[in-house]
Amino acid sequence: MHMIERRTFLTTLVSAVLAGPMARAQQAPAPDDLIADLVAANHILAMENVLDAMGHVSVRHPSRPDRFLLARSMPPELVMAADILELDLDANPVDARGRTSYLERFIHSEIYRARRDVNAIVHCHAPSLIPFADSDVPLRAMYHMAAFIADGVPVFDIRQAAGITDLLVRDAKLGKALAASLGNKSAALMRHHGAVVVATSIPNVVGRSVYLDLNARVQIQTMSLGGKFTSVDPAEAKLRMTDPNEYARAWELWKRKVTR
Amino acid sequence: MHMIERRTFLTTLVSAVLAGPMARAQQAPAPDDLIADLVAANHILAMENVLDAMGHVSVRHPSRPDRFLLARSMPPELVMAADILELDLDANPVDARGRTSYLERFIHSEIYRARRDVNAIVHCHAPSLIPFADSDVPLRAMYHMAAFIADGVPVFDIRQAAGITDLLVRDAKLGKALAASLGNKSAALMRHHGAVVVATSIPNVVGRSVYLDLNARVQIQTMSLGGKFTSVDPAEAKLRMTDPNEYARAWELWKRKVTR
Amino acid sequence: MHMIERRTFLTTLVSAVLAGPMARAQQAPAPDDLIADLVAANHILAMENVLDAMGHVSVRHPSRPDRFLLARSMPPELVMAADILELDLDANPVDARGRTSYLERFIHSEIYRARRDVNAIVHCHAPSLIPFADSDVPLRAMYHMAAFIADGVPVFDIRQAAGITDLLVRDAKLGKALAASLGNKSAALMRHHGAVVVATSIPNVVGRSVYLDLNARVQIQTMSLGGKFTSVDPAEAKLRMTDPNEYARAWELWKRKVTR
Amino acid sequence: MHMIERRTFLTTLVSAVLAGPMARAQQAPAPDDLIADLVAANHILAMENVLDAMGHVSVRHPSRPDRFLLARSMPPELVMAADILELDLDANPVDARGRTSYLERFIHSEIYRARRDVNAIVHCHAPSLIPFADSDVPLRAMYHMAAFIADGVPVFDIRQAAGITDLLVRDAKLGKALAASLGNKSAALMRHHGAVVVATSIPNVVGRSVYLDLNARVQIQTMSLGGKFTSVDPAEAKLRMTDPNEYARAWELWKRKVTR
Repeated sequence: MHMIERRTFLTTLVSAVLAGPMARAQQAPAPDDLIADLVAANHILAMENVLDAMGHVSVRHPSRPDRFLLARSMPPELVMAADILELDLDANPVDARGRTSYLERFIHSEIYRARRDVNAIVHCHAPSLIPFADSDVPLRAMYHMAAFIADGVPVFDIRQAAGITDLLVRDAKLGKALAASLGNKSAALMRHHGAVVVATSIPNVVGRSVYLDLNARVQIQTMSLGGKFTSVDPAEAKLRMTDPNEYARAWELWKRKVTR
Repeated sequence: MHMIERRTFLTTLVSAVLAGPMARAQQAPAPDDLIADLVAANHILAMENVLDAMGHVSVRHPSRPDRFLLARSMPPELVMAADILELDLDANPVDARGRTSYLERFIHSEIYRARRDVNAIVHCHAPSLIPFADSDVPLRAMYHMAAFIADGVPVFDIRQAAGITDLLVRDAKLGKALAASLGNKSAALMRHHGAVVVATSIPNVVGRSVYLDLNARVQIQTMSLGGKFTSVDPAEAKLRMTDPNEYARAWELWKRKVTR
Repeated sequence: MHMIERRTFLTTLVSAVLAGPMARAQQAPAPDDLIADLVAANHILAMENVLDAMGHVSVRHPSRPDRFLLARSMPPELVMAADILELDLDANPVDARGRTSYLERFIHSEIYRARRDVNAIVHCHAPSLIPFADSDVPLRAMYHMAAFIADGVPVFDIRQAAGITDLLVRDAKLGKALAASLGNKSAALMRHHGAVVVATSIPNVVGRSVYLDLNARVQIQTMSLGGKFTSVDPAEAKLRMTDPNEYARAWELWKRKVTR
Repeated sequence: MHMIERRTFLTTLVSAVLAGPMARAQQAPAPDDLIADLVAANHILAMENVLDAMGHVSVRHPSRPDRFLLARSMPPELVMAADILELDLDANPVDARGRTSYLERFIHSEIYRARRDVNAIVHCHAPSLIPFADSDVPLRAMYHMAAFIADGVPVFDIRQAAGITDLLVRDAKLGKALAASLGNKSAALMRHHGAVVVATSIPNVVGRSVYLDLNARVQIQTMSLGGKFTSVDPAEAKLRMTDPNEYARAWELWKRKVTR
């Protein structure tokens, strides 16, 4: 334990002198408040059962739009500030220091690349969403809390993009295909897999994810009644979404709950 | 802290002498017990998942029937006594002291104006109720605990009242339209939005809200069976509702749970 | 408070000398262990959501089969040993000492009168059971944990017994009608109301109530699939029910949970 | 600690020479870590509502493949290390010391005998699985987290194996019939009873059990929508299952939760 092989020592020394400064100096420090919010988002999404041990939430770097913050590969419920990695738009961690990245980090990198308006992304496997991902029944906005999907939720079918795979978005090509499916929408379903939700901020993406799940359960129950039903009109939804902090009141409650 | 700027001092003095008597003297102090019950109602409705971060509960002022008490704009689960505002029937807070009111306070003001028999109101987005708000399947009283809806639950469609809106009851005109839909009933559904429940007291409106939610879930499950079913007859319901404290036993339990 | 009217005093004295000994001496003290089990049963049924603030559980007196033990009128979750009343088969409390009885205690008295094999009874409003109480879809034993209903679950319709009522079993006549509906079965549904479950002991009636609820949810989900399904055969159920302590392992767990 | 009493020494020696070789010497001590994992598995499956007071989880002995470890007959939520028994493939406990075995331990012994690739087994009554056990609707892999059932889930009907029974797998003959139904699959449903799940390790069998339950709920909801749906292709599933630690991240979370 106390002995270090000569070769290892030299490699480490060179890293510290050369690679270290090159890597670390490029890492613009994200504000502590933003990292605290990202940690809280992990805990809130676990508390609200949008995420279980799987899935992840990220935020775009506030001063470097070609970077984003994402926890190392671990259960969201256990994430702490020291677990947050900074990644570039090729999904490479800037300063990993031995911390492993999520396999599906390309979901985030390619959506940030394609969508300048997006600052926060959730990828989840919420059970309420799979029925709409797997079937020909479109997910609709059943009430105003889910107004952000009134213009439709596309379904990404990885099989159409890449044939037989292990269903995971494990490279940039698959990430680009998912981002293309998403287009300019706020959420996309992933067949036999889950969903991705995007927004302008951490509170908004958490709020949208929670209410996407609730709204899906409402639609399942509505359709089980067997009657005719209507959903929110896109024109109504547009008026409803003028508030840039659409889920501020919920965020206030959730953050309080996970930090006490 | 101990120094007061001259101008501030004079303004305060003028307020106390002139504006103060006009505003504060008109605020009949609501009994502490009633405010404690309203705080408990907020917490109970959150505990029972009738309210989440959204929705609100109010009570008519006991000595000034043209006033009602309602929390400032915040998550019900976090409401404390100091957060309770007094509002008039134009939905103006009497003595806001910087506290923001709920945008949809007109739901309360206009129902209190229209219904002299109503002393407490809940507005909620309970997911179990949206299927009946959005579809042509009427909500029915499946068991005696929901006898209060045996005479039917109207659906308020804001689009019929005001065309394309953001779906929110954000002014007196929309509040009046909702109150007109409610008529003399105990609850009304709001299409693509939620519901409103009214009663003679805080315990009753809380009990009705909890059992409206439970009853809706029962009806959804009953209809998923695909058989024929019946609901409580209005004549049976009328006999069932002779107790003025219809949910006293539940209130006893709930209040104990949120105050320990 | 310190003054007692002469007439009251004399009445009380006579009661203490004459009626008192007649009443109290007739109250065979129920074993403390049985009362502790009845208190635990109240708490377990609340924990498992079979009972909410409403409903009750009773046990026949072990040495006086014409008596039974039942909490005073209160939420089951809050019941303590001092809240347990002893009642006779006319549903009169033997020694109430100011404690109010449940209005529907006749459910218990008349079933104990009619069924010598029954030593414990639960009356509940579990939401999963109402769909079968209100519709023409019979409740069936979906798996071995609910074998006790393989011979069928009758539905008691108070309207057929007594016309338009407030739906409550508020006298002996209605109690007898319910007991007649139950016949020799282990459970009966009550239209627009709830259910009653009977067994040979407190652990058995608690176990049966919990699994009646679970089994109903299983049947609802099974029928929502839309396929053909089968249920436990009465001959299989008979073999399954030879153990007199059918829910002993569950009781061990539940009692531990409510007493720690 | 360093002193051994003469008598103890001799007894131990005799045990080792005579009785020991027959009984105890055959009991290869299972590593403490494996027993700790088995205790955690019991608690996790209770926490995740796969097991209630009933059901069990076992692991094959790491150094003696003709043995397996299983708790004594008790609720999984209460299992401690001292409750873990070692059994042989005839389902006889090696050193019971008064501890009673589960009646249905033959489920485990006969599957370990038939399936050399299986190192861990769960038997459960999860309510979400009974609808597929009782009906003609096949359980399908709705998303990648349940890829292990993409090649189908057989249904074991004890009635076809043994006619009218009490539905319990109470001997080796019934255990063999169940193992034959399971074949080379990862899970089998048991009509009117529950399910059995197998895997290469404790974390894998716990993960598979949790997601088998979740996946069944997803399928029930999907089918209630009434549309056309697809499930994971066996070729996709095969690629998805190349990771030998398929549920490592979930195990990390769950174990943390039950051990804090």
